[in-house]
Amino acid sequence: MTDRPKRNAASTRAAILAAAQVAFTRSGYDGVGVREIAASAGVTAMLVNRYFGSKELLFAEVVEATFARRTLIGDDPATLARDVAAALVTGPADEEESVDGFLLMLRSASNPRAVEILRDAIERHFQRHLADLLPGGEAGERAALILCAVAGVQLMRHVLASPAVTGADPAVLAGYLEAAFRPLVGTSSEPGTRLPRNVQSL
Amino acid sequence: MTDRPKRNAASTRAAILAAAQVAFTRSGYDGVGVREIAASAGVTAMLVNRYFGSKELLFAEVVEATFARRTLIGDDPATLARDVAAALVTGPADEEESVDGFLLMLRSASNPRAVEILRDAIERHFQRHLADLLPGGEAGERAALILCAVAGVQLMRHVLASPAVTGADPAVLAGYLEAAFRPLVGTSSEPGTRLPRNVQSL
Repeated sequence: MTDRPKRNAASTRAAILAAAQVAFTRSGYDGVGVREIAASAGVTAMLVNRYFGSKELLFAEVVEATFARRTLIGDDPATLARDVAAALVTGPADEEESVDGFLLMLRSASNPRAVEILRDAIERHFQRHLADLLPGGEAGERAALILCAVAGVQLMRHVLASPAVTGADPAVLAGYLEAAFRPLVGTSSEPGTRLPRNVQSL
Repeated sequence: MTDRPKRNAASTRAAILAAAQVAFTRSGYDGVGVREIAASAGVTAMLVNRYFGSKELLFAEVVEATFARRTLIGDDPATLARDVAAALVTGPADEEESVDGFLLMLRSASNPRAVEILRDAIERHFQRHLADLLPGGEAGERAALILCAVAGVQLMRHVLASPAVTGADPAVLAGYLEAAFRPLVGTSSEPGTRLPRNVQSL
């Protein structure tokens, strides 16, 4: 035994997972190797493989951990359209942390195996949760389209940084997004909801 | 003079542009070099640079040529919601040709200079055209959100191949998408429009 305190298995595992999360989110699945992740975590590549089995399995654990911190979609269908709309367009557009899961997906989309892992995780963490939440029939179809819109706003706002999105008044964008989400959520408009003018006139 | 017929400048230029279009769409800006594009077109890298100036300028010409073939968004605001909705969810999901422009954007999104070129081209070819087309105020905001939704459906359908999208009845998806687009387009629903059941009851 040496004097240097030996990290226990749990903290080593957590350190590797944290390093992998940062690396995969920044560079995508193909853009990073186990060796680089190991170096960031201060361990050997062999240790990473002993703990996680492979780069693919490590990626799958990162996806699980990231998607489990699901914060965008709440649990109340009555306020879902408004809440998701507001969450999507507020906060700084250059703040990558809030769209970690999206960037992880987007930057790994060139690797077929990574896409399979992501597809499965999105299905379990987002699609099913949302479909269970929505009242009425065809909830799966409506949930899928809500997720499409969420992904699209994140893409145009955070990745492309479209000036038509980043330069617009977030309250105006949120109002229209809420109006667009409402037929997908399937709840009629709550009394007192403020909507942009030309939506109220419909 | 040799017996071999010499290609003229226009056809050489067109051959380089076609090879660059295929290469950039498949591999993204960072994933392909001028040398590789030159080889595909049967010319030297020096000739590519003589015709286009640089990889960056070649990429910009590819983006222009691709986005100019805009087919998804028509010119009639009265049918825009329905037309875009239908176009987005019909056709084979694994048919990449129909989403060339989107894949070109997505696969080059890791390069900051490519993103600038794409952002500018999207603004000129799609955002302004759509904003000019939409009746009523806040047309820029509504156009931006329509483009977000278009990008999101293309991402989830063609890149992620989400089973909730690819496995759904396209007519059902199109009905809900149309309902979601309507408050963004700003036209009230036309008489006789068939909408999914729980949308009609709103």
